[in-house]
Amino acid sequence: MRSPERDPMALALAAARAAGEVGDVPVGAVLLGPDGRLLAVAGNRVERRRDPTAHAELLVLRAGGRRLGTPRLVGCDLWVTLEPCPMCAHAIALARIRRLYFGAFDPKGGGVEHGPRIFAHATARHRPEVYGGLGERAAAELLRRFFAARRS
Amino acid sequence: MRSPERDPMALALAAARAAGEVGDVPVGAVLLGPDGRLLAVAGNRVERRRDPTAHAELLVLRAGGRRLGTPRLVGCDLWVTLEPCPMCAHAIALARIRRLYFGAFDPKGGGVEHGPRIFAHATARHRPEVYGGLGERAAAELLRRFFAARRS
Repeated sequence: MRSPERDPMALALAAARAAGEVGDVPVGAVLLGPDGRLLAVAGNRVERRRDPTAHAELLVLRAGGRRLGTPRLVGCDLWVTLEPCPMCAHAIALARIRRLYFGAFDPKGGGVEHGPRIFAHATARHRPEVYGGLGERAAAELLRRFFAARRS
Repeated sequence: MRSPERDPMALALAAARAAGEVGDVPVGAVLLGPDGRLLAVAGNRVERRRDPTAHAELLVLRAGGRRLGTPRLVGCDLWVTLEPCPMCAHAIALARIRRLYFGAFDPKGGGVEHGPRIFAHATARHRPEVYGGLGERAAAELLRRFFAARRS
């Protein structure tokens, strides 16, 4: 088995699965430091915490700030199973994340390649490098199964 | 003196001033419940908490979810001294806020009337009613003085 640092998307998927198991939409995120060290991992906790802002990405950004003692996570990379929504995309810009890696594209709720395309605007004073569609099938399948189970 | 519920922008301005006094950008927000009752008040705490997401709006949305026991703040109104950034604007949509009242317009960093204009996209499945430019002069003057003091 590879260490989490070597396979952050697998770790993000595990966090997504755990979120689904407690009744939250299964999305997971992982934050790595400038040296590639694991800083934070989190799953979506909107329902569990009754917090409209508790998306996986925001939770790892907040944890990263605490760990590094600064709100500016310069040189850090964020891995997430789903294309971030506009809230999370702008938070990623505010936090000065270096690289964003995401799994499934989200045509309905995404804010990177869809909708307001946050990084395309001058108001996003910082833009991460973006790599989308990584391990897309596993992330999308997890979400599909979650919503199918809730509808049945 | 009017009660906070009667003058939420004055309360938001007081929270903004307090944020500036601890070294954070002076922005403040107030959340009122469906019955007009005060649910939360907060100032920006990005620097103080080393949290890139700790904008005043996100702090009152999170507190509101805790107070009401749900991430869906249906019927709640949010007052903020400055036009929300794209992160906060989308959080406001996710939280299903009924009405958004803001003070100064923010052509550089705003995400409601500027930049990605979050509520203009279909990805924002909920749109609050928006009232901008309320008490604009006081909010803008507070920010101007803050940045002038830091540059000198």
